[in-house]
Amino acid sequence: MTNIVLSNTNYNVVGTRPIRHDGADKVTGRAKYGGDFAMAGMLHGKMLRSPHAHARIVSIDTAAALALPGVRAVVTGADLPIAGKDNPSLSARANSDNVLAGAKALYRGHPIAAIAADSLHVAEEAVNLIAVEYEVLRPNSNVLDAMKDDAALLHDDLTTTEFGEPTDRHSNIATRFRYEQGDVDAGFAAADHVVEREFSTRTVHQGYIEPQNASALWNTDGYLTVWTSTQGAFTTRDALAGVLDIPVSRIKVVPMEIGGGFGGKIPLYLEPVAALLSQKTGRPVKMQMTRTETFEATGPTSGAWFKVKMGAQSDGTLVAADAVLCYEAGAYPGSQVTAGAQCVFAPYVIPNQRVEGYDVVTNKPRVAAYRAPGAPISAFGGEQIVDELAQACGMDPLDFRLKNASKEGTRRVDGPEFPVIGNIETLEAARNTEHYRSELSGPNRGRGVANGFWFNVGLASSASISVHSDGTIGLVEGSTDIGGTRASISMQAAEVLGIPTEDVRPSVGDTDSVGFTFLTGGSRTTFATGWAAYECAQEIKRKMIERAGKIWDKDPAEIDLADGIFKHSSDEDLQMSFKELSAQLGRTGGPISAQVSINPSGVGSAFGTHLVDVEVDPDTGKVEILRYTAVQDVGKAVHPSYVEGQMQGGAVQGIGWALNEEYFMSDDGDMVNSSFLDYRMPTSLDLPMIDTVIVEKANPGHPYGVRGVGEVPIVPPMAAIANAIHNAIGVRMDNLPMSPGAVLEELWSQNGG
Amino acid sequence: MTNIVLSNTNYNVVGTRPIRHDGADKVTGRAKYGGDFAMAGMLHGKMLRSPHAHARIVSIDTAAALALPGVRAVVTGADLPIAGKDNPSLSARANSDNVLAGAKALYRGHPIAAIAADSLHVAEEAVNLIAVEYEVLRPNSNVLDAMKDDAALLHDDLTTTEFGEPTDRHSNIATRFRYEQGDVDAGFAAADHVVEREFSTRTVHQGYIEPQNASALWNTDGYLTVWTSTQGAFTTRDALAGVLDIPVSRIKVVPMEIGGGFGGKIPLYLEPVAALLSQKTGRPVKMQMTRTETFEATGPTSGAWFKVKMGAQSDGTLVAADAVLCYEAGAYPGSQVTAGAQCVFAPYVIPNQRVEGYDVVTNKPRVAAYRAPGAPISAFGGEQIVDELAQACGMDPLDFRLKNASKEGTRRVDGPEFPVIGNIETLEAARNTEHYRSELSGPNRGRGVANGFWFNVGLASSASISVHSDGTIGLVEGSTDIGGTRASISMQAAEVLGIPTEDVRPSVGDTDSVGFTFLTGGSRTTFATGWAAYECAQEIKRKMIERAGKIWDKDPAEIDLADGIFKHSSDEDLQMSFKELSAQLGRTGGPISAQVSINPSGVGSAFGTHLVDVEVDPDTGKVEILRYTAVQDVGKAVHPSYVEGQMQGGAVQGIGWALNEEYFMSDDGDMVNSSFLDYRMPTSLDLPMIDTVIVEKANPGHPYGVRGVGEVPIVPPMAAIANAIHNAIGVRMDNLPMSPGAVLEELWSQNGG
Repeated sequence: MTNIVLSNTNYNVVGTRPIRHDGADKVTGRAKYGGDFAMAGMLHGKMLRSPHAHARIVSIDTAAALALPGVRAVVTGADLPIAGKDNPSLSARANSDNVLAGAKALYRGHPIAAIAADSLHVAEEAVNLIAVEYEVLRPNSNVLDAMKDDAALLHDDLTTTEFGEPTDRHSNIATRFRYEQGDVDAGFAAADHVVEREFSTRTVHQGYIEPQNASALWNTDGYLTVWTSTQGAFTTRDALAGVLDIPVSRIKVVPMEIGGGFGGKIPLYLEPVAALLSQKTGRPVKMQMTRTETFEATGPTSGAWFKVKMGAQSDGTLVAADAVLCYEAGAYPGSQVTAGAQCVFAPYVIPNQRVEGYDVVTNKPRVAAYRAPGAPISAFGGEQIVDELAQACGMDPLDFRLKNASKEGTRRVDGPEFPVIGNIETLEAARNTEHYRSELSGPNRGRGVANGFWFNVGLASSASISVHSDGTIGLVEGSTDIGGTRASISMQAAEVLGIPTEDVRPSVGDTDSVGFTFLTGGSRTTFATGWAAYECAQEIKRKMIERAGKIWDKDPAEIDLADGIFKHSSDEDLQMSFKELSAQLGRTGGPISAQVSINPSGVGSAFGTHLVDVEVDPDTGKVEILRYTAVQDVGKAVHPSYVEGQMQGGAVQGIGWALNEEYFMSDDGDMVNSSFLDYRMPTSLDLPMIDTVIVEKANPGHPYGVRGVGEVPIVPPMAAIANAIHNAIGVRMDNLPMSPGAVLEELWSQNGG
Repeated sequence: MTNIVLSNTNYNVVGTRPIRHDGADKVTGRAKYGGDFAMAGMLHGKMLRSPHAHARIVSIDTAAALALPGVRAVVTGADLPIAGKDNPSLSARANSDNVLAGAKALYRGHPIAAIAADSLHVAEEAVNLIAVEYEVLRPNSNVLDAMKDDAALLHDDLTTTEFGEPTDRHSNIATRFRYEQGDVDAGFAAADHVVEREFSTRTVHQGYIEPQNASALWNTDGYLTVWTSTQGAFTTRDALAGVLDIPVSRIKVVPMEIGGGFGGKIPLYLEPVAALLSQKTGRPVKMQMTRTETFEATGPTSGAWFKVKMGAQSDGTLVAADAVLCYEAGAYPGSQVTAGAQCVFAPYVIPNQRVEGYDVVTNKPRVAAYRAPGAPISAFGGEQIVDELAQACGMDPLDFRLKNASKEGTRRVDGPEFPVIGNIETLEAARNTEHYRSELSGPNRGRGVANGFWFNVGLASSASISVHSDGTIGLVEGSTDIGGTRASISMQAAEVLGIPTEDVRPSVGDTDSVGFTFLTGGSRTTFATGWAAYECAQEIKRKMIERAGKIWDKDPAEIDLADGIFKHSSDEDLQMSFKELSAQLGRTGGPISAQVSINPSGVGSAFGTHLVDVEVDPDTGKVEILRYTAVQDVGKAVHPSYVEGQMQGGAVQGIGWALNEEYFMSDDGDMVNSSFLDYRMPTSLDLPMIDTVIVEKANPGHPYGVRGVGEVPIVPPMAAIANAIHNAIGVRMDNLPMSPGAVLEELWSQNGG
């Protein structure tokens, strides 16, 4: 269903829906993923992983493993450069220790050693022959346990940083911080209605279909090449250089096609280990994770405990807000609690607000980014409180949100003022949907809404363009293409040059063949790399105009390119299409090409409003999604189909997070549902069609008004569904997931059952 | 042995001898050649080739072949787009007909059909099941036979173009042309000494170690990707687009590493056929030639018959020259007789000169370029005549050449005036060598010299550069690296930026990932693509200086980069190394990258003088090379070791051509020595060390004075050796090769034996 509101700028290419350039390769299975990598003489690597969630490593004996025929090399943490450093800090050693454990195993699945062998089977066999002596310790498998005074400490040298200052307090709390605006106590005192609740969310995984993989060849000339599934070839290269303690220029990272990331394909996992095994053997080494390894040892997002309190006056004006957020970081500091804190109240104008955050290490895999990292968690609480306040004020939940909606000039709790944003337009568009205006009737049915905010980011991107003699262009971009960005980047270049998208042939470059480009994440790729392509196309345009001037013997200043035709400003006979001029380049001074790197400001933050109708089965507690509409300000939808796909995908991941997904932990701190059979992600059978409404409030900071789209749509779903459940059966769900059992328990407790 | 004369400009990087970037991969076998290509679902293609040198194809029956289990597709000439055209001209159909025969087979080995099958063995078996009915015709296997009035005609529609005008004369002579300056008859009348001789040379092959190969995937989206061993990815793409009648933008050519080319890896052979087989099957198809196929069906250089006449006055002044050159083109018009004509007298100032040329089709594989294509053939005659005239005038052969040496302003027979050239300096350097000043004594020993000229070319090249955060750069170039040009191109960028060669990471781009770059040939790559890298580095330098200005808050015009240090013109405290500034790019506006395409003029033509001492065994006729020195003006040797390697390689190929190599043809027009066992190329056991003297007469048309180096050194060897043989045993060798049998015959005929 196509639904775009506010679109007021017409382009020739931007806003159309061409077929993605990589489509045929993807659907025919020809696209080359990391799993397809093969090389003559290639060895297969396999990790030995900790069976304990928390243990001191007393000794590792690899002799029996090395003696197995076909085994070529073994590495342990002792092989990493960090092992030779004198008392490295926790932050200095975290990246190293996470890829191969140092003194301690901090989560089940933590890599302890790795084998390279002639075949995967031999490697797996050899891994079992490595004898590790562990001193097993008490695990902390959730944030509240880890924060207790008597909790076992993950890191002997971790002392809490409090409000920006180091302390000497040893604990599992890495950081405590606070944002504050206005007078929060006075604000609450002035409120007619105050609602406060505690919430919790569980660890969930990004659930990309392709497990992590990496192949490495550390060549005899000292140069390392790594082929890997990554969201960012350059950031992987730079992180790898850090762990291996070699210059970045010694490394070439070749990005393979990627089978999903959602933030989880940003950190290093296998790359340094495959590299070390290759260095030891002089052979290429390939490593691939199983699904269980992916669940147990790659970045899920934080589990969390938090409380949110908000106050409003009877007329529906928000006057105060307060939140305390405790996020799990997993084995090493670095949860996304900061973003959670900055986002929780961002959709609203609240004169008095405060958020306190705790970053807490736990005996779980180190968290990684997961789509708008940190924001969906706090929004699950915040948007429920807003709903209760609207109810208390007797207002429609969208009217209440509109009354308080943040807009240009509103300050976030952490300080920055919003530039031009489309929050109000998004809420209004949601209110205008047929969905929201429709009646929902029937028992145990309810409707919920929630709002969501995400910053989006800019950062460095590069693109190069070469003009072919038939008037088409080759475009090299530094960005991994996850969601169709070959198309959305190509389209921005095509728009400048007045050629169709099909006349652009995009390639994703490796780290030696295109300028530095930050990773695909932060909803930045279409925004920033698209902009790089735009600037590069502008340079091509200038050079082409110069050439036209040369051919016509005219001042280039008198020539312009519009709709793919070079025209002289006064002589109407002087016209030439892009194709015609391209064909003449060889004879008139040679080919034309350009490369541009940018680091754009002008990032456009974005908001989304989701509407959901549910029906709750009172006997089983199962929640069925009857209807779902995602409304979002994307600035400008360069390729509306892929924008809709992002909105739908975010909503669906949110539905899974809301209703089913969780790391189910044993008392020993082990995840006991580490397969797709037991870790229940939604399938098409669980879902209605997700309707979308694209709002286009142009971002004045981008040539085509683009904001970015990928992350916002995972922020509202959990709260929207919780609000819908409340609307259906009158119970407030404070904890995720809202699984049948959890809903039944709430129903029973409400009914005194 | 390092020997550089005239070098008068010192650079930091240009002129040094770093290890080539691709060295480790090449010596460890990790470099990926076409033969290493593999893809899931890949089929293997095999050609059926004509067993006849000249035959009309009556019918082709592929039914039995297609019925063989494992056979997936068959193609014949009827599958090429040309088959659907109405009466295409010879020039329009030559490229197509040469890859899959149309109405006629024109040489033994001419492709008739091709099979794609599950394995190479099945494909080979299936090829034998294709039934072809031929009407066998009389072959013309040398140029004189083909020119006879009663010769069988290769092309019914070939009419001779004479002196630029079409005629209606049907023959095997495609073109007859003439260059003339002054009054040749008057010139000879004024001469005191006139020498005239007839010469012949045989067909020889470039003899690269890697046979031709091509793999193709014609994807379901209509885009074709070809992986091939080629001297020019872009020129291969463009030629392929022509044969397949599709736009160039539908094709991506990925250049694999190349195991030698010397001009022979320029034409299309397997690419269109692999592409058609892929299109028919929807699967990738790989094709590789055997050595026999390479000999029988890929581009050798012309065999030729020609006569040269020159006249000098007693004082050694050349006054007249005349030559008639008849070169074999093989199956389709296009020998390099034009270049042979332009080069034969180029080393000399001759007021009255004329050259007539004939381009003649013969029943042999279509000729391809071979290092200075055309020039070595005519030089074999011209430089012997010069030797005889020097002797007639009683002059030292180098003194004679110096007296008449062409220089800046001298006009070639075809018109152009020489710019700054180093002909005189090269001859003087040769005269000054210890080799030339040494005594050669002993029976049957002799010394010979010869001069050689080649144009060199410029043409389009592209390069892109991205600055890495550690102060190194990635460089993408469009040129196939045959002889170390990753190094010689990188060095020119490194020189601009003041960084070491090792801090450049060069990659060879495919046709979608870098700007158009003409092929590696014409001795152009270090000249033109190196210049593109130089210009690109200049753009990087400008951008870096702007950034330094931003950081220092200074006018960029006051900042310069010298020896890798950015310095402010007046404030001595403001200094920053390239590395330091590179590290700050991310925080000061983002990364820096650039791409540049150029089409340079300023090509520097070049000359070489070779000295050789031989000993002839009077009993066997075998010629032993005792000592060999190659002297050459290269303008500037960017990487002297690789320049020396080119000079040595050219000399060695010339020695092979001089003494042993030839296509030995049967009466039926078949090559009967199509293996490296029977086609005798020189090995290290046949050769002394080839000494080199690099002359650096800077080319004012290039930023570093580069001229190009690869082709000149194959021009003089055959003549120099012939002159040495004459000096040793007093016989003139008019025909190549000067094999033991040929030398014995001349000895016997001289001695009346």
